Amino acid sequence: MNEFQLIDMMVAELGDVARGVVLGPGDDGAVTQVPEGCELVSSIDALLADVHFPSAAAPWLVGYRAIMVSVSDLAAMGAEPGFVLVALNLPQALETWAREFAKGIAEAAKKAAIKIVGGNVSAGPLCITVSVHGYVPTSQALTRSGAQPGDAVFVTGSLGAAAAAVCEGGLVDFRSAEELSGPARRYFMPEARLQAGLALRGIASGAIDISDGLLQDLSHICVASGVGAQLATVDVPVADGANLDQALNGGDDYELCFTVPAQLVDHLPALGVAATQIGLVVTKSGIELDGEPVSGAGYRHFQG
Amino acid sequence: MNEFQLIDMMVAELGDVARGVVLGPGDDGAVTQVPEGCELVSSIDALLADVHFPSAAAPWLVGYRAIMVSVSDLAAMGAEPGFVLVALNLPQALETWAREFAKGIAEAAKKAAIKIVGGNVSAGPLCITVSVHGYVPTSQALTRSGAQPGDAVFVTGSLGAAAAAVCEGGLVDFRSAEELSGPARRYFMPEARLQAGLALRGIASGAIDISDGLLQDLSHICVASGVGAQLATVDVPVADGANLDQALNGGDDYELCFTVPAQLVDHLPALGVAATQIGLVVTKSGIELDGEPVSGAGYRHFQG
Repeated sequence: MNEFQLIDMMVAELGDVARGVVLGPGDDGAVTQVPEGCELVSSIDALLADVHFPSAAAPWLVGYRAIMVSVSDLAAMGAEPGFVLVALNLPQALETWAREFAKGIAEAAKKAAIKIVGGNVSAGPLCITVSVHGYVPTSQALTRSGAQPGDAVFVTGSLGAAAAAVCEGGLVDFRSAEELSGPARRYFMPEARLQAGLALRGIASGAIDISDGLLQDLSHICVASGVGAQLATVDVPVADGANLDQALNGGDDYELCFTVPAQLVDHLPALGVAATQIGLVVTKSGIELDGEPVSGAGYRHFQG
Repeated sequence: MNEFQLIDMMVAELGDVARGVVLGPGDDGAVTQVPEGCELVSSIDALLADVHFPSAAAPWLVGYRAIMVSVSDLAAMGAEPGFVLVALNLPQALETWAREFAKGIAEAAKKAAIKIVGGNVSAGPLCITVSVHGYVPTSQALTRSGAQPGDAVFVTGSLGAAAAAVCEGGLVDFRSAEELSGPARRYFMPEARLQAGLALRGIASGAIDISDGLLQDLSHICVASGVGAQLATVDVPVADGANLDQALNGGDDYELCFTVPAQLVDHLPALGVAATQIGLVVTKSGIELDGEPVSGAGYRHFQG
């Protein structure tokens, strides 16, 4: 199969998730419409083999995860899913790999109700780059920069499961969604917290998705907002099978970390946001854990 | 420098081209507004070292080219430049490389009047993936699928210069825009035909940018439109220093190839579109050159 045959095959696998837009895959550009009264939220993420996922992992799982990880950025912005563009660099024209990958991105796109409107296939070291786009009513995007001293710090779900799965190893042994163990499911099939993100519009003062680890990602909110945070380890929701270090510093969970002004905290249950308060925003910069300063560890490219 | 320091440095280099949007780089997503009455045109392209450009080429030139090559897709759609997201995979935290690259993308973005609203930096084999977005009044996008028998086939500018530069070699010897020879300038600093694309709205029945070679790219219009084309070699505008094969099959020129209904051809000069008629659209599928069928050669990933 050459490049164009491979693309045609993959677009055929996408089915419905590539339809329903003004102009989908197959031209110089896709054409879409942003809903009236909405702004466009856009992000790009690269997932490299053996950096962000094991190169021998099942292509369906790799594809599913690539979409969900990207959609998670929309959740963190309080945006409704719109569309994605997917660039795949593949070492060889591996027809079966590409077909299973296409099925995986299609399934995740269906689950997240997002359209796959275009893409690119190149010969090169295995890498998936996803450009993700969503919609938010004008001026209602959640950002990292609005946290204020006194706000409560929350996280959705539980933390550390994906890091525990990476630590356990064996991620390459799973060939399909059905075979996944609990922690490996958290790694390959994270649930982008889209509903929580939408519900938090007008409520959260700051929000981020946890891709690099709670401490590091919370520190991004703190720096952008010019504040600090005090956390208590006893309040951190550690996932089954994970330890505290994995919950604090492990990435890949794609839960949301967000801050809420004290007077709005009571609204959360009614909004259907299942989240745990883990601390408070304070004036003093930096993050303190049980009264001790911590440095945001977590994953960093090029750290030496 | 770690990942975040590298990103901060690059964003600082971007200057004005990263401002003037609702929310630029630094959050989970950028926020932009699509002009009223417009649809959004979106495309993604990956440029891999030693596939799409020499890995030892000067980073300023690599960056400039990455943006212009992407913007060219907007030209082919008749879209006005909006914004780009840039994902850079870099083998090491090469501060100087990243700084010069950032200056190159900033300069091209300024030239094309497009905003750089976000990006991603990962450790990995050198690769640049650009997600490009532009605006077109509703239903006025140029596509590949509207060519009709009897339409005239045009190309902008001249063809083959970039292929001649690749053939000559020595692309890695140029360190800056000032040093570039004529053909190498066509390779590294292609002029995305944005003005022509805008002028061709409502005029062109089909359009594409020539990235893989005239014959191959014109064949995409023919297939999408269910037509064929007859060309005369004597009419093909071969660039200075290039030969006919480079003009027909060399990619990387980023000129536009487009079709125009016979009754609209006279409008082109008044629209300021400098283009050469090279043939006619016909009912019979395939492309004929001087009466002989040709197969669309040009670049294909995974061709074997």
